[in-house]
Amino acid sequence: MKIAILGYGNIGRAAEEAIKAAPDMELAGIYHHNEINDQMVNDQMVNDLDVVLICTPTREVQKFATVLAARGICTVDSFDIHGQIWSLRSALDPVCQTNKAVSIISAGWDPGSDSMVRALLMAMAPKGLTYTNFGPGRSMGHTVAAKAIKGVKNALSMTIPLGTGIHRRMVYIELEEGVDFKAVEAAILADDYFAHDETHVIPVESIDALNNVAHGVNLVRNGVSGETHNQRFEFNMAINNPALTGQVMVSCARAAVRMKKRGEYSAKTMIELRPIDLLPGTTEELVKALV
Amino acid sequence: MKIAILGYGNIGRAAEEAIKAAPDMELAGIYHHNEINDQMVNDQMVNDLDVVLICTPTREVQKFATVLAARGICTVDSFDIHGQIWSLRSALDPVCQTNKAVSIISAGWDPGSDSMVRALLMAMAPKGLTYTNFGPGRSMGHTVAAKAIKGVKNALSMTIPLGTGIHRRMVYIELEEGVDFKAVEAAILADDYFAHDETHVIPVESIDALNNVAHGVNLVRNGVSGETHNQRFEFNMAINNPALTGQVMVSCARAAVRMKKRGEYSAKTMIELRPIDLLPGTTEELVKALV
Repeated sequence: MKIAILGYGNIGRAAEEAIKAAPDMELAGIYHHNEINDQMVNDQMVNDLDVVLICTPTREVQKFATVLAARGICTVDSFDIHGQIWSLRSALDPVCQTNKAVSIISAGWDPGSDSMVRALLMAMAPKGLTYTNFGPGRSMGHTVAAKAIKGVKNALSMTIPLGTGIHRRMVYIELEEGVDFKAVEAAILADDYFAHDETHVIPVESIDALNNVAHGVNLVRNGVSGETHNQRFEFNMAINNPALTGQVMVSCARAAVRMKKRGEYSAKTMIELRPIDLLPGTTEELVKALV
Repeated sequence: MKIAILGYGNIGRAAEEAIKAAPDMELAGIYHHNEINDQMVNDQMVNDLDVVLICTPTREVQKFATVLAARGICTVDSFDIHGQIWSLRSALDPVCQTNKAVSIISAGWDPGSDSMVRALLMAMAPKGLTYTNFGPGRSMGHTVAAKAIKGVKNALSMTIPLGTGIHRRMVYIELEEGVDFKAVEAAILADDYFAHDETHVIPVESIDALNNVAHGVNLVRNGVSGETHNQRFEFNMAINNPALTGQVMVSCARAAVRMKKRGEYSAKTMIELRPIDLLPGTTEELVKALV
């Protein structure tokens, strides 16, 4: 399988490592995302590609996925705006069907592998509550919101899980020279990103010194199987965030190639994929090893 | 969907409850498994069935699944002899393809939902070790082995997880009158079922007083995503065993009906199923709720 990477930030670099570690894949190219219009779309080379991993900022995913699917090239992205996933899938699905491509969208860990776990737990205990608790780890959205506050030179917002889907925000900030900490703290606490959660603002000398791409999840369900209550399930992980996202995208690229071979032209989320399609090896090998 | 139950022990009863709790299913009949030859195969009524859940002892699964698939009726079973799953799948698959049926095999929690988790974790961190730790809960195989020892009136063998896939066996026994405990204990410890694990034999007045269908799993993977080591994952559950098995079978019945509608005639294990197919509702509803 010939896999290319579009966008070469943290996720793109992690995807590169995962492709190189895969026994059945070849890295066919790395495209910086400003090259898409002139180079990628017109270059004859890309006609040979099996899959392009779209590792650009999430808001640019739809544009690139549409262009590639229209040329019959499969894509995988880790689009992560939960409220817009169905809309992305609806836009890409007909393009894939018409042009014989497969697009696997929102393929990361949440949305992504966590979504598969949530679906499986729902099938095991259809009634009940699932809580997805995130962290400890950096929230990109909250970090960007804190950086946008006047007087903040650099920021890091950590998400701390408090259980039942409630989170604490630990906001570390580097102040611009001469700025009053109390005023900046008040502005952060009043911001809509932070106003609804327990938030602590902490001044630090260097955000760079705190840099860490670790993240985690504690996903809990207590539910009912048939008429039997108190069926308890828990999924935990403590991971390097871009490494896991890149790996999940690469595993989904394998699924895209197999689905295309079977003529399953469509845009799909991870809960619509067969787990076996994510893995190298034959059906016999995988059933014997994993079932 | 019209679902029938073949075999009415613990699992059959749990499956009945799960069918009745499902918004999209109708219980179309319960067959005791000694009725299969005269009643089930010849009775015209069963031509209306969408799926038969095979809740018989595991060694009778293949016989019944083959007869039903040959008539184009979908089946779900929870066949649990890990070393023979591929052989069962290989035998049923051509029967399903020829007669336009879908058979979902080994649909319980292990094999079953645990298999899906193992496959997903392998996709998230392809290199590394997964340990499946079972219990605390009753082991059917070990209980039967203990009951077969001379002088044992009744027995219960509990599996206790010690981590890294190592288990302790706590064997509770009710002795026949006048039997020497030490001799029975020695015979149990020498039995091949127990000789390789840490085993404790404990005489009790009443096995019935210890009866409990609780079980558990602690499934752990520490692996490598791309080139990043120490990616840590854990799946835990503490459940009522027959209730979960019955529920998983019923959720898989839904998948069987959908796969048959799409013409995917085949025998499949759970790692070959799409999680979304296990759940009631439309694709749009499920993607919006779970992804």
